[in-house]
Amino acid sequence: MSAGNDLAQPKFVPVILAGGSGTRFWPRSRRARAKQVLTLQGEGSMIQQTVDRLAPLAADEHCWVITNHWLRELIVDQLPGVLAKHVLAEPAARNTAPACALPAFLLEKTEPDTVIGIFPSDHIVGKNERFVEVLAAGIKLASEGENIVVLGVPPTRPETGYGYIEQGAELEPVNGIAVRRVKRFREKPDKHTAERFLAAGNFAWNGGIFLWSARTLANAIREHVPDMAPLLEKIAAAHGTPEFEEVFAALYPQCENISVDYAVLERRSVKGEARSGIYCLPADFAWNDLGSWASLHEQLGDDERSNVVDGENSELVAIQSHGNYVHAPGKMVALLGVQGLVVVETADALLITTLERSQDVSKIVHTLHREMGKEELI
Amino acid sequence: MSAGNDLAQPKFVPVILAGGSGTRFWPRSRRARAKQVLTLQGEGSMIQQTVDRLAPLAADEHCWVITNHWLRELIVDQLPGVLAKHVLAEPAARNTAPACALPAFLLEKTEPDTVIGIFPSDHIVGKNERFVEVLAAGIKLASEGENIVVLGVPPTRPETGYGYIEQGAELEPVNGIAVRRVKRFREKPDKHTAERFLAAGNFAWNGGIFLWSARTLANAIREHVPDMAPLLEKIAAAHGTPEFEEVFAALYPQCENISVDYAVLERRSVKGEARSGIYCLPADFAWNDLGSWASLHEQLGDDERSNVVDGENSELVAIQSHGNYVHAPGKMVALLGVQGLVVVETADALLITTLERSQDVSKIVHTLHREMGKEELI
Repeated sequence: MSAGNDLAQPKFVPVILAGGSGTRFWPRSRRARAKQVLTLQGEGSMIQQTVDRLAPLAADEHCWVITNHWLRELIVDQLPGVLAKHVLAEPAARNTAPACALPAFLLEKTEPDTVIGIFPSDHIVGKNERFVEVLAAGIKLASEGENIVVLGVPPTRPETGYGYIEQGAELEPVNGIAVRRVKRFREKPDKHTAERFLAAGNFAWNGGIFLWSARTLANAIREHVPDMAPLLEKIAAAHGTPEFEEVFAALYPQCENISVDYAVLERRSVKGEARSGIYCLPADFAWNDLGSWASLHEQLGDDERSNVVDGENSELVAIQSHGNYVHAPGKMVALLGVQGLVVVETADALLITTLERSQDVSKIVHTLHREMGKEELI
Repeated sequence: MSAGNDLAQPKFVPVILAGGSGTRFWPRSRRARAKQVLTLQGEGSMIQQTVDRLAPLAADEHCWVITNHWLRELIVDQLPGVLAKHVLAEPAARNTAPACALPAFLLEKTEPDTVIGIFPSDHIVGKNERFVEVLAAGIKLASEGENIVVLGVPPTRPETGYGYIEQGAELEPVNGIAVRRVKRFREKPDKHTAERFLAAGNFAWNGGIFLWSARTLANAIREHVPDMAPLLEKIAAAHGTPEFEEVFAALYPQCENISVDYAVLERRSVKGEARSGIYCLPADFAWNDLGSWASLHEQLGDDERSNVVDGENSELVAIQSHGNYVHAPGKMVALLGVQGLVVVETADALLITTLERSQDVSKIVHTLHREMGKEELI
């Protein structure tokens, strides 16, 4: 079924969060070349794919991007359809609450009914058509009253690296997409709790995609993070004036450093599923947050025994080797009797680790930064 | 004790065998950049170190080098003191017998008493002074009558990759260096036999260093490889004439493809230790044939847990990693949770294997050559 009939009914503005610092894919990712601007899989950088994926729902010129000063210029280059004035570099990293909320305050002044969608800039979606169908239903639902819509990824393993959404009563589908009330948001669980969540059947991974009208989000900030609201109002008031940069730089860093999940969603959910107005739609579109070299290996290989050789013009000769990921552009990669390795080469660095340990690459970045002072490699 | 007193008594001509094809240190070594012309350890390429080590015994201009056409030019460049006319490129690889014997036939015409020393061009000697002492004694012994002197490396493990020398009666030391008769030469043994050799105490590794007068070696070829002798005589006769290259190219490939060990030493030893005139001196000068990346790791690291990062301007950051060898010039090498790996990067290739499997790197070269036709990587 297609949600096409309902597309473009409420005005929809995607807000793409692109402030990630780029440690998980070191040494390919750096502060100034973070994961979201890399082409890791498929055509185009991850943020280009994010914008392309949203194209059936929102024209590029309606998109906003919140990033940092290391990445802003490159993102403006990579997204020629997105207005440069819609690509904001945070004066300081303040987690996701102020980044999500600032566009809400900006839009609230002139078009409060616009539905804002919050999107990570560095996740993979395998089924773009399904993504559009689910989003269209979510936009419709979020355009009604004070509704807040979150997308829950159907969990496939007792993952301890994600937050969870505990779902409650099942409601009437919207455009054929299942809708459930949200009971509670749960922070990253321990293994035992994650197993319980998985067994319970009504828990979904929180993939960081949220939908709400500009008014709903701005009001939620006023209600749940009252100190932050006047700061964002002043920044929004200055937008389009010569003072904007100055005001932005002065006030934004005063905002509380807090995630939108915790600042708004968890606090709102305390009202109980019947009164919070938070709804969960299934993110059943082959979502992957591509959180490590191991998960890129999984995406690119046929199975766990695949040797994946990545990078332009690289070739492979493998003898008694399987389940390795190697990034070595322009090189003949020769594997002899090795399993489960991750080897990533760039012009100035060579990472050698295992699929199993690849989620700890940030420890290398931390050591280079804090202990060795190798700023040029960060 | 010093052998200095006896140096330079008999004329001594080193013949350096440098025809190796360069597969063990792939991807650094190639046909045209074989191990002997690489700087793997210490100052200078392995063949430069070989010539330097011999300097107290023989002036550079007395050295001969037998190599192949891929390497000749580079070797002439690397050894400015060696006469270019003494650097011969075999028209075809014919193992060590004709390569060792050709200089003997060349010298026999004018100076038959000259002692010829056969030296591999790609081995390591840790104790150069001891090397000179042992060689000086060997040269003295080889200058007497029809004596043949071989050097035996004291074995430290039941190695199956080397030939062995079975030693017999102990004789009077020469210049204080122990001398034993040779009973037999043994080909590379199986594990069980190697263990027996090691336990027996009178077996040494054959490190490929032999000493004999030009006359003795030429006569030994006449006796044990009679078909080869006239070919080499004709080549020697043409040396220095305009026809040399043509004669060399026509006749050398007709020589039997056979090692000097098998062609001369084994056949001579059949006469029995009392009559063969073959003597063994101890190569107790920290010899290492540097046969694989693992043995380079052993040479360069403090112990087996060392991480060795090799190559100009490379640096290391290691977390929970040990016993790795990485060659990555100009790069920050980051190791995370890995053990016992060998990773070698060049401009066009990246090898990933283990210390344990690194002696099989030739299998990679074979596959690139025979199955993939990647001549540019060989």
